[in-house]
Amino acid sequence: MAGSVYGTVFRIMTWGESHGKGVGVTIDGCPAGLALCEEDIQTYLDRRRPGQSRYTTARSESDQVEILSGVFEGRTTGTPIAMIVRNMDQRSRDYSAIMDVYRPGHADYGFDSKYGFRDYRGGGRSSGRETIARVAAGAVACRLLAQYGITVTAYVKSIGVFEVQSARFDLAERDRNPLAMPDPVAAAEASDFLERMMAEHDSAGGVVECLVDGMPAGVGEPVFDKLDACLAKAVMSIGAVKGFEIGDGFAAAEARGSENNDSFYTDGDGKVKKRTNHSGGILGGISDGSQIVLRAAFKPTPSIARDQQTVNRMGENVQIAIRGRHDPVIVPRAAVVVEAMTALTIADLLLMNRSAKI
Amino acid sequence: MAGSVYGTVFRIMTWGESHGKGVGVTIDGCPAGLALCEEDIQTYLDRRRPGQSRYTTARSESDQVEILSGVFEGRTTGTPIAMIVRNMDQRSRDYSAIMDVYRPGHADYGFDSKYGFRDYRGGGRSSGRETIARVAAGAVACRLLAQYGITVTAYVKSIGVFEVQSARFDLAERDRNPLAMPDPVAAAEASDFLERMMAEHDSAGGVVECLVDGMPAGVGEPVFDKLDACLAKAVMSIGAVKGFEIGDGFAAAEARGSENNDSFYTDGDGKVKKRTNHSGGILGGISDGSQIVLRAAFKPTPSIARDQQTVNRMGENVQIAIRGRHDPVIVPRAAVVVEAMTALTIADLLLMNRSAKI
Amino acid sequence: MAGSVYGTVFRIMTWGESHGKGVGVTIDGCPAGLALCEEDIQTYLDRRRPGQSRYTTARSESDQVEILSGVFEGRTTGTPIAMIVRNMDQRSRDYSAIMDVYRPGHADYGFDSKYGFRDYRGGGRSSGRETIARVAAGAVACRLLAQYGITVTAYVKSIGVFEVQSARFDLAERDRNPLAMPDPVAAAEASDFLERMMAEHDSAGGVVECLVDGMPAGVGEPVFDKLDACLAKAVMSIGAVKGFEIGDGFAAAEARGSENNDSFYTDGDGKVKKRTNHSGGILGGISDGSQIVLRAAFKPTPSIARDQQTVNRMGENVQIAIRGRHDPVIVPRAAVVVEAMTALTIADLLLMNRSAKI
Amino acid sequence: MAGSVYGTVFRIMTWGESHGKGVGVTIDGCPAGLALCEEDIQTYLDRRRPGQSRYTTARSESDQVEILSGVFEGRTTGTPIAMIVRNMDQRSRDYSAIMDVYRPGHADYGFDSKYGFRDYRGGGRSSGRETIARVAAGAVACRLLAQYGITVTAYVKSIGVFEVQSARFDLAERDRNPLAMPDPVAAAEASDFLERMMAEHDSAGGVVECLVDGMPAGVGEPVFDKLDACLAKAVMSIGAVKGFEIGDGFAAAEARGSENNDSFYTDGDGKVKKRTNHSGGILGGISDGSQIVLRAAFKPTPSIARDQQTVNRMGENVQIAIRGRHDPVIVPRAAVVVEAMTALTIADLLLMNRSAKI
Repeated sequence: MAGSVYGTVFRIMTWGESHGKGVGVTIDGCPAGLALCEEDIQTYLDRRRPGQSRYTTARSESDQVEILSGVFEGRTTGTPIAMIVRNMDQRSRDYSAIMDVYRPGHADYGFDSKYGFRDYRGGGRSSGRETIARVAAGAVACRLLAQYGITVTAYVKSIGVFEVQSARFDLAERDRNPLAMPDPVAAAEASDFLERMMAEHDSAGGVVECLVDGMPAGVGEPVFDKLDACLAKAVMSIGAVKGFEIGDGFAAAEARGSENNDSFYTDGDGKVKKRTNHSGGILGGISDGSQIVLRAAFKPTPSIARDQQTVNRMGENVQIAIRGRHDPVIVPRAAVVVEAMTALTIADLLLMNRSAKI
Repeated sequence: MAGSVYGTVFRIMTWGESHGKGVGVTIDGCPAGLALCEEDIQTYLDRRRPGQSRYTTARSESDQVEILSGVFEGRTTGTPIAMIVRNMDQRSRDYSAIMDVYRPGHADYGFDSKYGFRDYRGGGRSSGRETIARVAAGAVACRLLAQYGITVTAYVKSIGVFEVQSARFDLAERDRNPLAMPDPVAAAEASDFLERMMAEHDSAGGVVECLVDGMPAGVGEPVFDKLDACLAKAVMSIGAVKGFEIGDGFAAAEARGSENNDSFYTDGDGKVKKRTNHSGGILGGISDGSQIVLRAAFKPTPSIARDQQTVNRMGENVQIAIRGRHDPVIVPRAAVVVEAMTALTIADLLLMNRSAKI
Repeated sequence: MAGSVYGTVFRIMTWGESHGKGVGVTIDGCPAGLALCEEDIQTYLDRRRPGQSRYTTARSESDQVEILSGVFEGRTTGTPIAMIVRNMDQRSRDYSAIMDVYRPGHADYGFDSKYGFRDYRGGGRSSGRETIARVAAGAVACRLLAQYGITVTAYVKSIGVFEVQSARFDLAERDRNPLAMPDPVAAAEASDFLERMMAEHDSAGGVVECLVDGMPAGVGEPVFDKLDACLAKAVMSIGAVKGFEIGDGFAAAEARGSENNDSFYTDGDGKVKKRTNHSGGILGGISDGSQIVLRAAFKPTPSIARDQQTVNRMGENVQIAIRGRHDPVIVPRAAVVVEAMTALTIADLLLMNRSAKI
Repeated sequence: MAGSVYGTVFRIMTWGESHGKGVGVTIDGCPAGLALCEEDIQTYLDRRRPGQSRYTTARSESDQVEILSGVFEGRTTGTPIAMIVRNMDQRSRDYSAIMDVYRPGHADYGFDSKYGFRDYRGGGRSSGRETIARVAAGAVACRLLAQYGITVTAYVKSIGVFEVQSARFDLAERDRNPLAMPDPVAAAEASDFLERMMAEHDSAGGVVECLVDGMPAGVGEPVFDKLDACLAKAVMSIGAVKGFEIGDGFAAAEARGSENNDSFYTDGDGKVKKRTNHSGGILGGISDGSQIVLRAAFKPTPSIARDQQTVNRMGENVQIAIRGRHDPVIVPRAAVVVEAMTALTIADLLLMNRSAKI
C-alpha cells in the first residue's frame, strides 16, 4: 500500500532504484492467452532508453528486459508476469556532495521527512528510471488493448512555448526527430530552444498529448472511478507532471454550454457518433465511443548545473550545483511513459467492465 | 468495485440517485475518538444546497443529514459512520421527453452502453446530487484534519473569463456573494455574464481553486500514489471537471528549471521553508511542508434550454430541449465539493503515512 | 479499511450497532439487469430474525428491509444498492452493570484496547445484529448466483454432540424445526440438550454445514485468493466461528493419498466428473465442478446468566452475571449467515473470473 | 487481482512457476528503518528447502535469495523490497505423459477450465515452489514483528494419526528431527508410518500448529477483517490445507459456554490476563493479549506413484501413474510456510491498527 501498486483487475507492482540492482514489475491479472514475448516489451523500452540523442542523459543503459514468469509457449498463462531490467551503469561515484542536501525541485526533503532517511544515490526510488517498470507493464497492456482494436499514441505537443501546429501534424514525424514531436518545424524550434537552455545550464518543460483510438463506449465507472479521473491519477503519478487535461481541458471552463456540448448523430447505421469532440471521448466519466484526448504538463527538469540555494539535513543553509548526468528536458522520453500509464488504466477499466451486466 | 468506493484507510462508499429515496455515504476507517455531530456535517452540506441564489436550480431540498451509526456519546467509535440525506423534491413529472434520448454533454449514452439501460430520472446516479455524499464524508475528513492543524479552503477562481485578481483577494468575500468568489469585482462581472447566459438559454463553466494549509512534509507515497496524483483523481472524479493543476500547473511546462525550482531555506529554527511555491506544496508526489495549491476546470453545465441535435435509444436523429431545473453554472456550489474531495484524499494519505516508519 | 468492507468486484460495506438507529449495507458492483425487490431480501432476513422460537433472544425486531438505491423498475442498475434495517427494540435500560466490565468470551476488552472506549450497549458493533447486513447483501448475491444455476444451502449439522445423521438427512426438515437441523431425530435430541443448558443458565455451540450446487469448474484464483481461502475468511469472519473445514477437512490429515484423491471420470458426454468428493469441490483453490461442502464450528454463546470472574476498565477483579436477552445457542439463526457469506464470496470470485481469459 | 497479491498495508505480490526461471516476491509497505539482509531471509528459506531428508523431493535446489531493491545501507527504505530465487533444477524431461492428463487431487482440471490451457511442467504456478515467495516475505514480516516483541512459531502437530503429546512437548526437538515435530516419540512413530507409506507408493497428511507470542491486545478489525478470519484465509491459501482452527476450534462447538469462556483476571499490576485460553488469543476478531494458537490440516500429497483413474483434455478416461520427484508428506516443510503466512497477516493488521485512534 506504500504506493507501488497500480490497478485493480490488471494490477501491477513495481520496484527498483536508480542505483540499485535494477528495476522491475510484476503484473497480476493479465488474462490468459495473450501472445507475448520479450521483443514486444523491448520495443517500448527502447523508446524511453537514455543516450539516444544529445538531449538525454549520457547514462549508458541498454535496458534489456527479461520475462521471468507468466508466459508459457508464447502466451500469457493468467498467472503473474514478472519482468526485470538490470541496471548496468550505476557508476560508483562520490555522493558526499548531495547525500545530505535537499535538491530544489526534488523529493529529497519529502523522503527524509517521511522515512527518516533515504537512498540518496541518483534519486533512489524517485529516479526517472522507475518509469522503466511502468513502460514494461504498459507494453503488455498495449498488447492486450490491441486485441480489442484499441491503440494508444502519445507524442510531445510542446517544449517551452514551442508547440506542434495542427496544420503541420504528421505522426510519422514523431519517430524521426529526437524530440518526439509530430511536426518538423516545431521540433526544429524546440531544438534551438534546448540548445540555449543547455548553454545556460538550464532546463525546459513541455506538454505530452495522448490519443486513444478504437475505444468502445461504456468504459469507466460513474462516481469515483471515472475513466478521466483514473487517467488523471495515472498520468499525474509520473514524476514532474503538474497538470492534466481531458478534451478541451481548461479551455472548457471559458466556453459556453452551447459551444462545449458535442452533438450526437447517426448515419442510420446504428452507430452513435459525435459532430465535435470537446469532451475528449469521455462524458460523465464513461467513454462515449469517440477518440480519447488527454494532455500532461511536465515541469522543467529540476536538476540543473547552476548554483542553487537550499538546506541540508543538519538544517543549514547551503549552496548546491548538481553535476550528474541529466536530461535538459524529459518530455521526449516521457511520451512513451504517458502511453504506458494510459494503456494500463484503460486495460484495467476494460476488464472491470466485464462485470457491468449480468 | 463499480466505482462508488473511495480511499484506502479512510474509505467511503456512496450511494443514491437524483430521483430515488435519497443519497448517502458510509465511512469505514475514521479513527476513534473524534468529536462529531450532525451540525458539523450540515454546515458543509448547506454550502452546496440548491436554491440559495438565482444561479442555482430551483429544486427545493433542505438536504438534512442523519448520522445512523459510528458515533457514540459525541465521538466516533472507529466503526463505520453511515449518513443519509433523504430526497424531498423528487417531483413526479413526465420523463417521456428524455427517457430515450441521449442528452449532449451527459453520460446517458455511456450508461446505456455500459449497463444496457439506465435510471433516466434527472441523471440518476450521474446527477450532481451524488456529490452530497462526498460533501458529508468530506466534512468528517475536515474535522479529522483540523485535529492536526490542517485546513482546506476552496473558492471560485473564475467563471467564464472573469477571474479573481490576487490584488483584490479577500477570502471572507467568498461567503458573501452567491458565486463563492473571493473578489467582489470579479463576482460582479461574473454575475453580469451569467445573467446574459441565462437570457440566452446558455450556461457557463469556471475554475475552482483549493488551498491546504498546515500540511506537514512527508505525506503522499512515491510512485503511483503520489499526493498530487491522488488529488488529481479525487478532483477529476467530480462530474464536469475537465482539467487539473497543482502549483503552477500548465504554466510550469513553459518555465525554465531555474525559474520553476523553489529554493529551500531556513531561519535557523530547524524549519525548512521555501522562498517560492511553484510546486504547489508537493515535490515528487510528497508534501514539502508548504501550502498545497490546486485548481480544477469545470465545463459549462450541459443541460441548456436550447434545441440540440442528438440521437435516441432507437438510433434515430432527434432534437431535444432540456426543460428541467438546472444551474446555469455549477462552480459556486462545486467549491465545497472540491474541498471535500481534497480533505478525503489528504486524510487518507495522512493515516496511511502512519506506517511509513517502524 | 477498518474491516467493514467485503469483496473485490461484488463489494459490500456494512454499518450499524446493536442499540443504534439500525444496521445497513451498501453493495457496489452488483451487475446491472438483475431482477430484485425487497421481498427477495426479506425472505432471507426472516430466517435469522429473533423471537421465532424459545431458543432465541426475546428481543422483538421485525427486521424490515428498505432498499434505498440501485434498483430501478424492478432491476438492478449497476450502481450501489443501499439497504437499511431500522432497530425497533433497542430498549432503554441500565447499562451501568456492564459498561465498565469486560464480559468473558466477548470483544469488550479488545475494543477498549483498540479504540480507547466502546459503545457498550449490547455489544455495539460486535453484536450479532451486525449479521443482518451480511444476510441482506447475501440475499442479493444468491439472486445473482441463481442466474447461473448456482444454489447455496446451509443447515445446522450439530448442536453440542448431537449430530445430523446422513441416513436421516432431509433438507425439507430444516425449515420445519426451530433448530434448522435437517434430521428430526437429531433436532429432538438437541432440543432436549438445549432445555438442560437453559435450565442450568448455560449455553451451547454447534456446527453449520453449507453446500453449493451447480458450481462451474474454474472459479477461484491460484495462490492467495483460492476459493477455499476466501470462503474460510468469509465464514470465520462471522462472530463465534472457531473452525472451518472444506470437504473432508481435518479428517483428510489422517487419510492416505490413495484414499483422499478423487478420481476423475467421464461418461463420454464431455463432462468431467469425480467418483468421490473428498476435496469438497475445490482443488488447488479452484472449483472442480463438483458440490462445494464446507463446515463452520461455532462456540457456545458467551453471554450466560451465571456468575463469572472478570476485570473492569479500572483494572479491578470483579464478578459479573449477564442478565440481557440472549440466545442459548446461535447456530440455528447462523445458518443463513453462513449461506450469505458463502454466496457473497462465490459471487465475487465468479465475477472476477470474467477476466481470466482474453 | 488474479490472486497473487496479499495484504493491505504490508502488501506482497508473488510470481513464479515450478519449472520457469524462478520464483519471487515484492513487498510494498514495509516500514522504513528495519535492519535487513539476505541472511535474515535465507534462514527461513532453508527450513523449507527440499532435499534435507528422505521424506522430501529429491529435487536439488539451493534456494538462494537475492534482494533486488528496497534495502539501503542495511535498512529498509520504505520502498518496495523485491526478492528473487532462481530455479536451478527445473530439469528438462518428458512431460508428454501428464501434459494432457488431469492429475487427481491437483488443480490441473481447474486451471484448464479457468484459463483454457496451463503450464503443465511440475504444476506450474500451483507447485509447492510457489511457497518460497511466501516464506521470503514472511521472513521480513517476522523481522518486523520481532521489533515489537512478537514471535511466531510453527511445528508439526501430527502426521497421519501420530500426534505430538503435550507431556512430551519440547520445541527444541522440532529442529532436531526431519519431521519438525517437537516430540521425539511422535516423530519416531510418524517416521515408521511414512516408511510404510513410501513402500506402498502412498502419501500422508498432517496438522501444523502455530503459536504467536507477545501479541498486544487490540489487533484485528471487527466484522470482516477479524484477526482470525484473516489468519484463516492466510493459512487456507497454502496448497493442500483443508481445515483451520483457532484456539479450541471444532472442540468448542461441543463445549458449554461456562466451560469455553475464559475468565479475565488481574494481579493488580494493571495487566489483564486470562485463566484459560480456549479462545486461542482472539475474541470477536480482536487479539485479547494472550497467546494466539491456530492449526491447519493438510491433506496427503496428491502425487502418488500408483495407478489412478482420471480424464484427459480430450475427454477420455485414462490411467495415470505420477513418476516425478514428490514429498510423501509435506507438513514438515510446510510449518515454516504457516509461520510466514501468520507473520504476514499479523504484520499487516498491526500496521493497520496504527490508524485506529486519532
